[in-house]
Amino acid sequence: MTKAAVLLADGFEEIEAITIVDVLRRGGVGVDMLATNGRDEVTGDHGIVVRADARLGTTDPYDAIILPGGHPGAVALRDNDAVIAALQEMDAAGGLVAAMCAAPIALGRAGVLAGRTYTCYPGYEDQIDNGEFAEDVVVVDGRLVTSRGPGTALAFAYALLDALGKDAATLRQRMLYTLVAGGSAPE
Amino acid sequence: MTKAAVLLADGFEEIEAITIVDVLRRGGVGVDMLATNGRDEVTGDHGIVVRADARLGTTDPYDAIILPGGHPGAVALRDNDAVIAALQEMDAAGGLVAAMCAAPIALGRAGVLAGRTYTCYPGYEDQIDNGEFAEDVVVVDGRLVTSRGPGTALAFAYALLDALGKDAATLRQRMLYTLVAGGSAPE
Repeated sequence: MTKAAVLLADGFEEIEAITIVDVLRRGGVGVDMLATNGRDEVTGDHGIVVRADARLGTTDPYDAIILPGGHPGAVALRDNDAVIAALQEMDAAGGLVAAMCAAPIALGRAGVLAGRTYTCYPGYEDQIDNGEFAEDVVVVDGRLVTSRGPGTALAFAYALLDALGKDAATLRQRMLYTLVAGGSAPE
Repeated sequence: MTKAAVLLADGFEEIEAITIVDVLRRGGVGVDMLATNGRDEVTGDHGIVVRADARLGTTDPYDAIILPGGHPGAVALRDNDAVIAALQEMDAAGGLVAAMCAAPIALGRAGVLAGRTYTCYPGYEDQIDNGEFAEDVVVVDGRLVTSRGPGTALAFAYALLDALGKDAATLRQRMLYTLVAGGSAPE
């Protein structure tokens, strides 16, 4: 089974984190929400407390590592050496590395954006000194997938399924995303 | 402060529930996630465990009562007599009653759809014997707001803010929803 780790720090953006986990599990990806705060529960940017599946560093390797944004969640991810090491290891192993909203700042610190194109929440590109910034809703550059904010979380999650070789088109229909974004969503 | 109750049963749809809570809190509404299972934690349709703020029946009245969908969450809400009583009381008091996806089946059992227009996830209208079904992404009929599925959760949440007299337009921009759904979203 394809396995993905979604890293949660206190202050994670709830819509982003939960949308990623929900969609990937619907699509047949085994997802672990990994706490990076050394505890078993993580508190989101808007006070929603979620139970993590495990703590970062206690599980087997994954096929993908995915970072939701949020304040101060994305800063906590960027400043966590274990998170940076996990990103670098995933990238070196050729796995999927992904982040959205403010969280690409962690990818920047990890150095995995060099020579690649990425996107992020407007303005955070000023805190990233490697990689080429683009304004698309979702940017896929090889095994790097990035996106912009809560409103783009579903588009990001479907792009992650595509990148992991799963069927996103059926879910886009079943989840009624096509009613809102249409078949012409700017992905 | 405007206060809203979001009712959670085991098997709730995570994107729907979390999107509603996140957006309403961003918009200045005081939101309590109320567990309807008699416990302090509730487990979603895709295995995500969320800590409730309180249990249904233990808090002061609200200005709105909102039901996310999910399987078997929506059925559990419909079959819970305390949920039905809460819906009927809110409706009788002139408060906002709202549900999405499969959860309008609970509104049907409560009898609050009679003489009104609503929407739901495709097919669930067959289980509802009062009210007039419509296929819009979000249906607002006075103090009744309904919507269709995970892909319409943001549109639903912004419509709830509108109905509660809060500013949704700024959030639609800040959360980058307009990048995906555009200004012409079918709301």
